[in-house]
Amino acid sequence: MTSLKNTSLFFVMLFAINIVKGQEEMQLLDYVNPFIGTSNFGATNPGAIAPRGMASVSPFNVAGAENKLEKDSRWLSNPYVHENTFLTGFSHVNMSGVGCPELGVIVSIPTTGELETNHLKYGTTYSEETAEAGYYSAQLDKYKVKAEATASTRVGVSRYSFPAGKSNILLNLGLGLTNEQGAMVHVVSPTEIEGMRMVGSFCYNNPEAAYPVYFVAKFSKPADEFGVWKTPYKYNGLESQWMHYNGETRIKKGFTREVVGDSIGAYMTYNFKKPQQVEMKIGISYVSLENAKENLEKEVGNSNFESVYANTRKAWNEKLQVVEIEGGNKDEKTIFYTALFHTQIHPNILNDINGEYPEVGTGKIGRTEGTRYTTFSLWDTYRNYHQLMSLLYPEEQLEMANSMLDMYKENGWLPKWELNSTETFTMVGDPAAIVFADTYLRGLTDFDVQTAYEAMLKSALNTVSNPLRPGLIQYIEKGYIGVDSHVKGPVSVTQEYNIADYAIAQMANELGKNEDYQKFSERSTSYKNLYNPETGFLQPKNTDGTWFSEFDPLAGTNFASNPGYIEGNAWQYLFMVPHDIEGLKEEMGGNSKFEARLDELFEKDQFDMANEPDFAYGYLYNFIPGKEYKASAKINELIHQYYKNAPEGIPGNDDTGTMSAWVIYSMMGFYPITPAKPVYTIVAPTFEKVKLNLDPRFYNKTHLIIEKIGNGNAIKSMELKGEEINNYTIQQDPLLLGENLIIQTYKTNENE
Amino acid sequence: MTSLKNTSLFFVMLFAINIVKGQEEMQLLDYVNPFIGTSNFGATNPGAIAPRGMASVSPFNVAGAENKLEKDSRWLSNPYVHENTFLTGFSHVNMSGVGCPELGVIVSIPTTGELETNHLKYGTTYSEETAEAGYYSAQLDKYKVKAEATASTRVGVSRYSFPAGKSNILLNLGLGLTNEQGAMVHVVSPTEIEGMRMVGSFCYNNPEAAYPVYFVAKFSKPADEFGVWKTPYKYNGLESQWMHYNGETRIKKGFTREVVGDSIGAYMTYNFKKPQQVEMKIGISYVSLENAKENLEKEVGNSNFESVYANTRKAWNEKLQVVEIEGGNKDEKTIFYTALFHTQIHPNILNDINGEYPEVGTGKIGRTEGTRYTTFSLWDTYRNYHQLMSLLYPEEQLEMANSMLDMYKENGWLPKWELNSTETFTMVGDPAAIVFADTYLRGLTDFDVQTAYEAMLKSALNTVSNPLRPGLIQYIEKGYIGVDSHVKGPVSVTQEYNIADYAIAQMANELGKNEDYQKFSERSTSYKNLYNPETGFLQPKNTDGTWFSEFDPLAGTNFASNPGYIEGNAWQYLFMVPHDIEGLKEEMGGNSKFEARLDELFEKDQFDMANEPDFAYGYLYNFIPGKEYKASAKINELIHQYYKNAPEGIPGNDDTGTMSAWVIYSMMGFYPITPAKPVYTIVAPTFEKVKLNLDPRFYNKTHLIIEKIGNGNAIKSMELKGEEINNYTIQQDPLLLGENLIIQTYKTNENE
Repeated sequence: MTSLKNTSLFFVMLFAINIVKGQEEMQLLDYVNPFIGTSNFGATNPGAIAPRGMASVSPFNVAGAENKLEKDSRWLSNPYVHENTFLTGFSHVNMSGVGCPELGVIVSIPTTGELETNHLKYGTTYSEETAEAGYYSAQLDKYKVKAEATASTRVGVSRYSFPAGKSNILLNLGLGLTNEQGAMVHVVSPTEIEGMRMVGSFCYNNPEAAYPVYFVAKFSKPADEFGVWKTPYKYNGLESQWMHYNGETRIKKGFTREVVGDSIGAYMTYNFKKPQQVEMKIGISYVSLENAKENLEKEVGNSNFESVYANTRKAWNEKLQVVEIEGGNKDEKTIFYTALFHTQIHPNILNDINGEYPEVGTGKIGRTEGTRYTTFSLWDTYRNYHQLMSLLYPEEQLEMANSMLDMYKENGWLPKWELNSTETFTMVGDPAAIVFADTYLRGLTDFDVQTAYEAMLKSALNTVSNPLRPGLIQYIEKGYIGVDSHVKGPVSVTQEYNIADYAIAQMANELGKNEDYQKFSERSTSYKNLYNPETGFLQPKNTDGTWFSEFDPLAGTNFASNPGYIEGNAWQYLFMVPHDIEGLKEEMGGNSKFEARLDELFEKDQFDMANEPDFAYGYLYNFIPGKEYKASAKINELIHQYYKNAPEGIPGNDDTGTMSAWVIYSMMGFYPITPAKPVYTIVAPTFEKVKLNLDPRFYNKTHLIIEKIGNGNAIKSMELKGEEINNYTIQQDPLLLGENLIIQTYKTNENE
Repeated sequence: MTSLKNTSLFFVMLFAINIVKGQEEMQLLDYVNPFIGTSNFGATNPGAIAPRGMASVSPFNVAGAENKLEKDSRWLSNPYVHENTFLTGFSHVNMSGVGCPELGVIVSIPTTGELETNHLKYGTTYSEETAEAGYYSAQLDKYKVKAEATASTRVGVSRYSFPAGKSNILLNLGLGLTNEQGAMVHVVSPTEIEGMRMVGSFCYNNPEAAYPVYFVAKFSKPADEFGVWKTPYKYNGLESQWMHYNGETRIKKGFTREVVGDSIGAYMTYNFKKPQQVEMKIGISYVSLENAKENLEKEVGNSNFESVYANTRKAWNEKLQVVEIEGGNKDEKTIFYTALFHTQIHPNILNDINGEYPEVGTGKIGRTEGTRYTTFSLWDTYRNYHQLMSLLYPEEQLEMANSMLDMYKENGWLPKWELNSTETFTMVGDPAAIVFADTYLRGLTDFDVQTAYEAMLKSALNTVSNPLRPGLIQYIEKGYIGVDSHVKGPVSVTQEYNIADYAIAQMANELGKNEDYQKFSERSTSYKNLYNPETGFLQPKNTDGTWFSEFDPLAGTNFASNPGYIEGNAWQYLFMVPHDIEGLKEEMGGNSKFEARLDELFEKDQFDMANEPDFAYGYLYNFIPGKEYKASAKINELIHQYYKNAPEGIPGNDDTGTMSAWVIYSMMGFYPITPAKPVYTIVAPTFEKVKLNLDPRFYNKTHLIIEKIGNGNAIKSMELKGEEINNYTIQQDPLLLGENLIIQTYKTNENE
């Protein structure tokens, strides 16, 4: 492993060379289908976005009763749903693959004819929908307007092709996926609108932390007319009798002062004698209007739509080239590269082009020399996502570690589920510790390790108003959290703390802190306190040590709230001990009982591919000597059962790329089975040949090639650097140093 | 008359000399009772304000069911009502004596104990209320906090005396008298909060023009804690089930980013070990945050409460010294000087200290070298207010004329009812023309007369989308506006246009434009078309020339809407022909019939002292030879009947000083009976001696002294400069040149 001391010049040159090689690499983009995950609650959107972009331009079709899935009529976490049909615009800050509604604001739409500002009235069906990495377009049926979108990192760029006649571009700041309200808008000139929108309360948590997102919109053609609209509260009572305009939308024609309110917007109107295109660029900042302008100027300036799109294509192409594949059909390749595309959306860039970003907790504006990342869904991503980033994009992974550390420095606490510098306190456990340990143990050590370790210890030991580990005192004293403790999901939480403590132990070991290593190693297997040999489950226990009497192993199915578990039931959490697989086997009574229990999980349909606790379970067969073929077969089965080149092609929320990381690893034939342990467990890959291009600034080898011989779904034998290996689970170092892993496969009917 | 070419140095020096004379002048302030007009719909407020201040600090006691007159439960146009008891703070931009709710925002309140942001809960009764010119104080019962307020022109300054313990200062930006919504707030530091509030839609008109008012608040002590609160819309439907905070106020502790929304506020919290005072200065601007800060810095800077108050006292004293009186009791003197105080509130200063102000209609920021005035309630003020300003504060009157002209230059139209650079289109007629003509004919000619005349003609002649004179085509063609024309109050409007046309004729005459003089003179008496000799009323007529068949001379009593008149009935408009009293007499059949009709008006209780059309009617007896004693008696009766040194001491809305101007003139013993004609009609004064200090830059004499001999209410004889005069109505020039008017009075029982 080399350190991060070199500049990134080498890598840039490497990619530049690849690109000019032409045809082959450029075609990787053809394997990105941004519609994958836009149905079946994948919660991705097909909007135009640059890699890890702050801005994106997503079609917004979740408002209005015409839509099957309407944002206010159900739990809905995305600005776009593939089966919906009624478009009310294009939102300019969006989240991808998350489980809660947030952002989805700064909504623009081109219309024609008389100005109509009510989205329920101006909304339209659409057709001829296309999407690529960094590009989206559709024909808006009602207006015969073609809307195209692309984006640079901090700027959404739209191109609207209008027919002749009266046309409008609306910027609706009332409409949004977020449940937060409040906006400011200011028409600066016939070619410029600036403003801000309040967002926040992700997952209906922490609404107090709602914060502003700023924008500036520039238009390629000066409007013939412009204005602002505002829909006020409706007054009740006597006074309303004099307010002929009570609750009604007001059009402030030609208004050039600031306007604030909960439901406002601005418009540009054109009178076109012939069909015309208008390009609209919207620069975003979470810091200030000035920064939004600077982002727009420096990132896009006078470049036109085509030029921005070309740059973004180039950026995406560079991203995708880290893995080259041979074999597999077009759908499989599309599933793979789209998944890779989906891992490059979050965590996303928060800092402005001048380095400024809002700090966590302080209310101050910080400044970074590098990149400040945001959107850390760590309960999800600690399991495989950051491992994949360490492998394929190590510089980014280190920057993410640095961003997380900066949050600790600002806020006094590591992030749990951080979004735009607010801690949303979504999900449970102490996942940041795991990410630091995993990153470090995989050889990416160029971060402030002492501070990271200090932060990890703080959340693991501080029993006074610790926002990350509720129930910690009981956990330390009793080894588990009692079901009567008011901590939600006490079994799940105990398991999560165990995994985090294991990670801290591994880190302590690396840093030579033997006492900590002992202590946290011991803490990490306390889940055993919750294993009831009579039922064969990890189950809720009362603080007094007795079992919770109303235990039902199925309670919690389908995300139902239940006394023991978070987003799952006793089956789904039974095997979530990735750091102590041998220990769990022992508890269960050895290999064959473990195998039988695992079989039962799948047979009883209690395995949940759509949520993180379970989704590595298929790999557990690799830990039962002689039954490794079941792991390969199961993983191959799951890939083809749940991942598709189709809108419903992700089994559930993509979880900021975690589901995608699963399929990337799984299709490549290996998986980081134990977070914070630099190992990979191996299964039969999907493709004939996978070539990982490793960043030579971090790895001693420039690539790892995995070849599959035979079109099987189980492993017959393996050869690393020409030498046969018998372990299905191996350390990362020898694997990467091996450069070439050849996997002989055969066909098994197991699990089919 | 001298011109305005001199600097104002002379005047300043004059006042400076007066002040050091000490005692006598200083005591004038003791005759200001800011509670006069705070009941009986006088609509004044007792808040602290500097002369013509942009900012003021008014107690705000019109919210909450505890209050007898609640702002949302009835038509209520003032932030304070004397008989109300429940105070919810102090508003920092306020209107005085107007008929519609507007402004009354940026509401602060000191509280103690745990933070409570709902004004219905934090509101309190109060006691020990005192008010002076530029000062207000009360004890807030619930909190045992003494709240004091003073103000400079653009800065409201408060001093809160807290007991020991936890204390808070709230800035509530949701609460307000205005019906407009929307605000921004930003806690800059523990000693500074900045923000803005949307205001507008005065008289429920023109809500589209709602505009921002900016502020910055600085605190003398840094807060121990601070934050922002926000109360969002309540979500309905399914989504609300996840929003435990749905519709509830959120406290954003320590939040230092911008927050926008319809219902927000900010707070500072202190933990005092002993009783402490905190001073809060709030700078205001209608242009920008930066200007609000500059206004605060340059106008107040580091001055403390006492120092600001001392300066404002001094400024008020200078204002009041223009008239010195002898005789009269304390109540009469108080009525007089409080009225003078009330004439110095509106029109108020709109421009920031750097000269910037929002232009009318353009959306641009203009800049003035002098003073930009706003709040022109011209339908009211053309009748006597501007005449009084020309007499007592000629420099201000010229600046007002210039402000009105600038509006025309910006907007293309003269103002009708202008407020903070929005035209509210309240009331009727074309009053600006009258003000220009009156000002000019009274000798104040140093304004852009050509442009003024052009503007006057434009509104009098332009029949295409003329916002000032609806129904103008019919008026020109038929001499009246038909009741079937959709113009509201067609009789009243015809009368108003007549008066305006008379004014234009007088101006044309002065400018040597004979053709215009002839034309507008002719137009000015077209009211006669509406005089029905059979009923003896000016009454509504159909466009076809027939009388409106459902005529009822009482329809319109008590401001009820009716087909013929604005805010009045046929009786109340019968004599509103101030420019053609002789003509009306002739229509009615001569002096005695005119007198009988006037007697009937009063006897039938159809005279309305509370509204402008009527309130000079008492003076009309001066135009009936031999019956002049009735004028004196009636005016003296009305003064004592309707004006009191008490909260109910103004007969109705003060109308930005118009009611006050009436009583000032009436108590001095003369009145500008005909707008745009530089005459005064004379009655027996209230005081033994009145000395008007004239501005020598505008007038050839430094003073006019009016002496009353005998304690009568009717005039026996008059002597001007030692020579007896017999006319009860004389030109302004000989009156002012006369310097000394001695009025012999006698007691008559007429009208008692």
